[in-house]
Amino acid sequence: MAIEDQTHAGNGSGGSPSTLDATQTGKAGSGTDEHTLEMVNAWWRAANYLSVGQIYLRDNPLLRRRLASSDVKTRLLGHWGTTPGLNFIYAHLNRLIAGRKQEMLFITGPGHGGPANVANAWLEGTYSEIYSHVGQEEAGLAELFKQFSYPGGVPSHAAPETPGSINEGGELGYSLAHAYGAAFDNPDLIAACVIGDGEAETGPLAGSWHSNAFLDPTHDGAVLPILHLNGYKIANPTVLARMPDERLAKLLEGYGYQPHFVTVEDPGDVMAAHRDFAATLDTCVDEIHRVQQDRRSDAGGHHWTVGSDGTAAHDEEPESDDTPAWPMIILRSPKGWTGPGEVDGKPVEGTWRSHQVPLAGIHDDSEHLAQLEQWLQSYKPDELFTNEGALQPEIAAQAPSGDLRMSATPYANGGRILKDLKIPPFKKYAVDVEAPGRERISAMVNLGKWLAAVVELNPNNFRLMGPDETASNRLQEVYTATDKVWEAELHDVDEHLARSGRVMEVLSEHLCQGWLEGYLLTGRHGAFSCYEAFVHIVDSMFNQHAKWLKVHQQLPWRQPIASLNYLLSSHVWQQDHNGFSHQDPGFIDHVVNKKAEVVRVYLPPDANTLLAVADHCLRSRDYVNVIVAGKQPALTWLNPEQALLHCARGIGVWEFASYEVAGEEPDVVLGCAGDVPTVEAVAAAQLLHESMPGLKVRVINVVDLMRLQDEKEHPHGLSHRDFDGLFTTSKPVIFAYHGYPWLIHRLTYRRTNHGNLHVRGYIEEGTTTTPFDMAMLNHIDRYQLAIDAIDQVPALASRQAGLRQRLQDRRLKAWQHTRTHGEDTEEVTGWTLGGDD
Amino acid sequence: MAIEDQTHAGNGSGGSPSTLDATQTGKAGSGTDEHTLEMVNAWWRAANYLSVGQIYLRDNPLLRRRLASSDVKTRLLGHWGTTPGLNFIYAHLNRLIAGRKQEMLFITGPGHGGPANVANAWLEGTYSEIYSHVGQEEAGLAELFKQFSYPGGVPSHAAPETPGSINEGGELGYSLAHAYGAAFDNPDLIAACVIGDGEAETGPLAGSWHSNAFLDPTHDGAVLPILHLNGYKIANPTVLARMPDERLAKLLEGYGYQPHFVTVEDPGDVMAAHRDFAATLDTCVDEIHRVQQDRRSDAGGHHWTVGSDGTAAHDEEPESDDTPAWPMIILRSPKGWTGPGEVDGKPVEGTWRSHQVPLAGIHDDSEHLAQLEQWLQSYKPDELFTNEGALQPEIAAQAPSGDLRMSATPYANGGRILKDLKIPPFKKYAVDVEAPGRERISAMVNLGKWLAAVVELNPNNFRLMGPDETASNRLQEVYTATDKVWEAELHDVDEHLARSGRVMEVLSEHLCQGWLEGYLLTGRHGAFSCYEAFVHIVDSMFNQHAKWLKVHQQLPWRQPIASLNYLLSSHVWQQDHNGFSHQDPGFIDHVVNKKAEVVRVYLPPDANTLLAVADHCLRSRDYVNVIVAGKQPALTWLNPEQALLHCARGIGVWEFASYEVAGEEPDVVLGCAGDVPTVEAVAAAQLLHESMPGLKVRVINVVDLMRLQDEKEHPHGLSHRDFDGLFTTSKPVIFAYHGYPWLIHRLTYRRTNHGNLHVRGYIEEGTTTTPFDMAMLNHIDRYQLAIDAIDQVPALASRQAGLRQRLQDRRLKAWQHTRTHGEDTEEVTGWTLGGDD
Repeated sequence: MAIEDQTHAGNGSGGSPSTLDATQTGKAGSGTDEHTLEMVNAWWRAANYLSVGQIYLRDNPLLRRRLASSDVKTRLLGHWGTTPGLNFIYAHLNRLIAGRKQEMLFITGPGHGGPANVANAWLEGTYSEIYSHVGQEEAGLAELFKQFSYPGGVPSHAAPETPGSINEGGELGYSLAHAYGAAFDNPDLIAACVIGDGEAETGPLAGSWHSNAFLDPTHDGAVLPILHLNGYKIANPTVLARMPDERLAKLLEGYGYQPHFVTVEDPGDVMAAHRDFAATLDTCVDEIHRVQQDRRSDAGGHHWTVGSDGTAAHDEEPESDDTPAWPMIILRSPKGWTGPGEVDGKPVEGTWRSHQVPLAGIHDDSEHLAQLEQWLQSYKPDELFTNEGALQPEIAAQAPSGDLRMSATPYANGGRILKDLKIPPFKKYAVDVEAPGRERISAMVNLGKWLAAVVELNPNNFRLMGPDETASNRLQEVYTATDKVWEAELHDVDEHLARSGRVMEVLSEHLCQGWLEGYLLTGRHGAFSCYEAFVHIVDSMFNQHAKWLKVHQQLPWRQPIASLNYLLSSHVWQQDHNGFSHQDPGFIDHVVNKKAEVVRVYLPPDANTLLAVADHCLRSRDYVNVIVAGKQPALTWLNPEQALLHCARGIGVWEFASYEVAGEEPDVVLGCAGDVPTVEAVAAAQLLHESMPGLKVRVINVVDLMRLQDEKEHPHGLSHRDFDGLFTTSKPVIFAYHGYPWLIHRLTYRRTNHGNLHVRGYIEEGTTTTPFDMAMLNHIDRYQLAIDAIDQVPALASRQAGLRQRLQDRRLKAWQHTRTHGEDTEEVTGWTLGGDD
Repeated sequence: MAIEDQTHAGNGSGGSPSTLDATQTGKAGSGTDEHTLEMVNAWWRAANYLSVGQIYLRDNPLLRRRLASSDVKTRLLGHWGTTPGLNFIYAHLNRLIAGRKQEMLFITGPGHGGPANVANAWLEGTYSEIYSHVGQEEAGLAELFKQFSYPGGVPSHAAPETPGSINEGGELGYSLAHAYGAAFDNPDLIAACVIGDGEAETGPLAGSWHSNAFLDPTHDGAVLPILHLNGYKIANPTVLARMPDERLAKLLEGYGYQPHFVTVEDPGDVMAAHRDFAATLDTCVDEIHRVQQDRRSDAGGHHWTVGSDGTAAHDEEPESDDTPAWPMIILRSPKGWTGPGEVDGKPVEGTWRSHQVPLAGIHDDSEHLAQLEQWLQSYKPDELFTNEGALQPEIAAQAPSGDLRMSATPYANGGRILKDLKIPPFKKYAVDVEAPGRERISAMVNLGKWLAAVVELNPNNFRLMGPDETASNRLQEVYTATDKVWEAELHDVDEHLARSGRVMEVLSEHLCQGWLEGYLLTGRHGAFSCYEAFVHIVDSMFNQHAKWLKVHQQLPWRQPIASLNYLLSSHVWQQDHNGFSHQDPGFIDHVVNKKAEVVRVYLPPDANTLLAVADHCLRSRDYVNVIVAGKQPALTWLNPEQALLHCARGIGVWEFASYEVAGEEPDVVLGCAGDVPTVEAVAAAQLLHESMPGLKVRVINVVDLMRLQDEKEHPHGLSHRDFDGLFTTSKPVIFAYHGYPWLIHRLTYRRTNHGNLHVRGYIEEGTTTTPFDMAMLNHIDRYQLAIDAIDQVPALASRQAGLRQRLQDRRLKAWQHTRTHGEDTEEVTGWTLGGDD
């Protein structure tokens, strides 16, 4: 993406030529002149002032009169500790962006950096452009301060409401994965990612460093990780901050980076810190460009290793194909830097005590009030703001403008740059189905062919993520069109691995999810293919993304982004040898807890319905779509036209599987959702018909699970009239469901006929097992479903015992075969429905 | 723990003296004589043979006749790739254990190493001791082979059924955390943890290396990580295997370990590999003991850093207090080592193609059948097994015996060594409650005092884990009795940090959960305190542990272990500035999906009930207990005796809050579960009484959520009669619930009066908000509950409008106060119930 250059013409600070000088002369700081650094410092002071103001003030925003306790909020909430460090980094990035016209995205890892993001967005003007009631004047400042951590206001962490943000503060661990996701296929972008030393302890973050093995310097942008060690979490020191530099450097070099340390030795000598950071930042960005240029100018080209001195040793070792050693910064600065040094005789700046609100009890303690005023005045607000309350023009002039502002970059409002995905023609990839239930096709294999076409049509804005399971989930046809991206060593034995590719495989569900979120939030498309049971690994990441989408949908300035699509396979009903640890259909339950505006769940029963659903989902916006489908060869039911119609409806009577009399109500309804339950329900209907030819049996298949819910509770919900038309108001309904049975009750408990609904689903049974054995153990097999139906039809009361016995005998026989031979009998794997009988 | 020495007297292989020689002379292998290594190799061959047999054979287990296709299973399932490496390591550990009488626990990280664990357990005799039908003879071998990955048999990964295992294969990432959990407070134990290079890519594993900063060499045992790089996952190379050795060494040194490489250069020269590994293993265990002895002999003693050459530099740098640099091994060996080199012209050994079943289609391909026979014969089974089918005595003699066998160690069957937790007297820590609803006490602060006493009474078998939230969750009183363990640098500013302690704080929910699981599974007690919303991070870990417990309960040889106790606070109703990202009560829903035999959920409404619940949970066995309680000062309701009784019942009418007439049914029932909903429900009852003094209102509080369920579905479930007695069969019930409202419907949908049940709960609303604002947004506030009740009582129809309006006015007024002043009005924060009115 090329962002239009709108930077102030007069702004010449920190440009490329002097920057290159800095690189050549090391970290002496000669690259940036002192005046520019003074301006950076002024910006930092202003941002810090606004941050303290947000936490404390409800009036007197410019200290135009002495601070009174009535100016201070009654409840003091928010987090100061991480904020000055974030403001420091932001100010320096601004200098670099303005000077180089570098496209940058700012990712705020530290959870409670909200005041910093909001302060900088206001200083850049973006905040007032979006939220006109928070203007560039004293009244706007007062509003800026008051709304922070206030009922109905803005939270104390980065959130969708925060301009320039794509990473929610709150649950920690995903910033670096988001940064990489943003950088993929954005060759001009540098994602500057601030990682707090608290966040760095999380597993997902610790694993995210390995993302460099999946970033293609030729076609992707870059990530500049800035590990911000301020030493403390809420109440503890951090593991990384308490490592000796030498060991920390080894850790990061081991991860494949070139670490550059900036250590604030004397918190009072801020200009020394500015010089050091400015020079280091220039060095790092130069090095990023050098890595990119080398690779881009020489396609077969050089690769890099980290030398023992921590510098890139590419000139000496051109033959190595280790992952490029990208630069990163380790900033050691005091927690709560520039805040109160001591409070009540205890050290605060530089300790965990500055994590939240360093000065409390302002209303009861005039000394604390005086200390707060002194702290605020230490930034010299009179020098920073005009009489009207705007930022002084000279300070404002150093910032980038227009879309180069990190608070305004379209990368952080991905819908602005999202292009429609080109979707291959459905009919071309749909499979022929002459009659239902005759042929077996793996729905996932077929989907893989279609995904290959998606990849071909969209060579640089679609990615498929998977935790080493793309082929295991039978999507391997996608490799006819693309490769798996891999920046580490390549060996002759490797297949489908290449320096660039649309498929990303790493054995980390967290990385798959985090990369995809970053990729989608910056305006692209994708899907995440995963084993159903293990997708619970990202339950909490799904939560945060769903919440993001919910708030994002309500913000008019945030443009719709592509949906996050889960393709869940290797599901609970076909685990064979994998057994109990691989069984869990509960992700659907987890998803359905989130807002109806955001979540969709699909259970396509065969190849064509899976294709129709995927086609629909990949076109959609602002949702999380969960698609569950089997990977084994399975019966096909619907031809392409039928599949499209059925999926558009989301639910419907399957007449070919039903035994009804026109104009009459059925005696019993068999509902089904999910591929294996559908086979069993259709088979049960046939068994019932064979046992009792006059019985009127209706089979209803559900593709779109949300159709079961009330239309008032979900936009896809059926009206009561439509629901009653399908399920009747009084006849027994036996429902075979893919997941935990109670979800069906939850979705339907207000329906007229709910009292007659009997749901069969997964009830946590089965270690090592075959598919039929598994169905048996959970009482969802065809025989049991038929028995259940017989038990519920009053007209059959007299014949119940005999019918039951016959079905029980067949059930037992089939099961004995499985247990004896280790595989299912043909009676259950074979099939006879179709035109023959 | 001191395990009785039952090792064969005649076995002198690999003892300490020669081992020390090996250390001094480097990795020449001089430490272990060739005969011993030949025996190790024979064990390895036997284990490999048994592994291949499990995957392929259903008959002819000793190849006493030519292999026929009828001897081979029809469905070939299971995983060969990782197995020979696991067998290799196991054989070497056995030599070391037998020689040194070293207590060791074997943790199998690679997901599908099941054949290896089972094979070694059979070779050690443990398998036949536990499962008598799988004896030490040909018929037993046949059964061993057949049951593997067979319906009703054993899964292809380590599982509760596998002797010696505490780490489920399946979902990857937790082996190293489990190993550390096992090592804590077990000073004589070395937990040997094999980490697959696939697993090493996961976030949780990447974060687990930092566990060394929390292991106390004086009082804890040691972990010996063995990073097994066989290069490939299911279908891809691995990130760590494709790193140059130099970079990988830096990574592990950066993590704080001393890496020792063993690289199998020539897969055919197995004796060279044995020599190399044996010497390295001796070096590592010597180094472990040296670290321990140094620290244990000198309490104020030395600490260690990793020298630039990868060796411990403690002699030179005694003053550093960096974390001790524990040794670890990096084993590079071919995937599927000793398996088919090529199949159908494609390389298999040493590639991902050996991940699962290297030779398929045996029944249709006589060449493959011949290749399988050749492969099996390559281990020379005739040399390994007696005529009867037992392991040759000379090979068997090298193994440890009795409880030193890793398949029989009590560390892996923790219930065998579990000691009852000493529980402090409830009454001493319960708070005085003169009248309900008068005083405010933080239930968590009070619990912290009790936990301090638990710690004092149980100084070495109880731990409290928390992701930097112990104090934030207000359990800080525990620091009066103990410290937070911290093995990294200590600074003067630190508080409650020490080299040993009962509290473990790391900003990783995965580590907290993984450590605790390892600690509990090896026979100790503990709890995990976490913010409610972020405990979803370990959803999938909870799943695996709950599944483990379910199967474990069914195995008579597995002894009951202490329950896993979650203390969830900082919950959804009191998030203030944290807002939306911190809100999620869905962990309860997730938990309730698991088997009733395993899960318990408690929502104590005040300080004494929390104490009673915690007392109960810490005494319990084999459960997962979820306790949700607020941390803010909150009203107390029940005195100690009432609290004990109420918690024992789990549910009950609160007469002090009800307005009933003896012997008559109420007009309306207000149910509540959770501390905030309880306040609102009690207040609503009072509002109703004030509005309409004659109205009969019953208040029911639920502590034990499972009481709501049918007794047939959960052991704690109420009978229908008892339920109807409480909730009536026809009166309106307004239920205020802590979490998502549909869970209450799910638990009660078969109850007689379910049609009259109206549940209010969290419905995903609220960004920045106060407690009352939050209750309002979710319609769970006292005014709305009272209005709901009025709307449902038929007798009030004529007065509805007036009553409604009055309550609506008060509701709006309270809400306006909140929005204007940023804090809740006294009308809702104050309280008047008690003896005054």
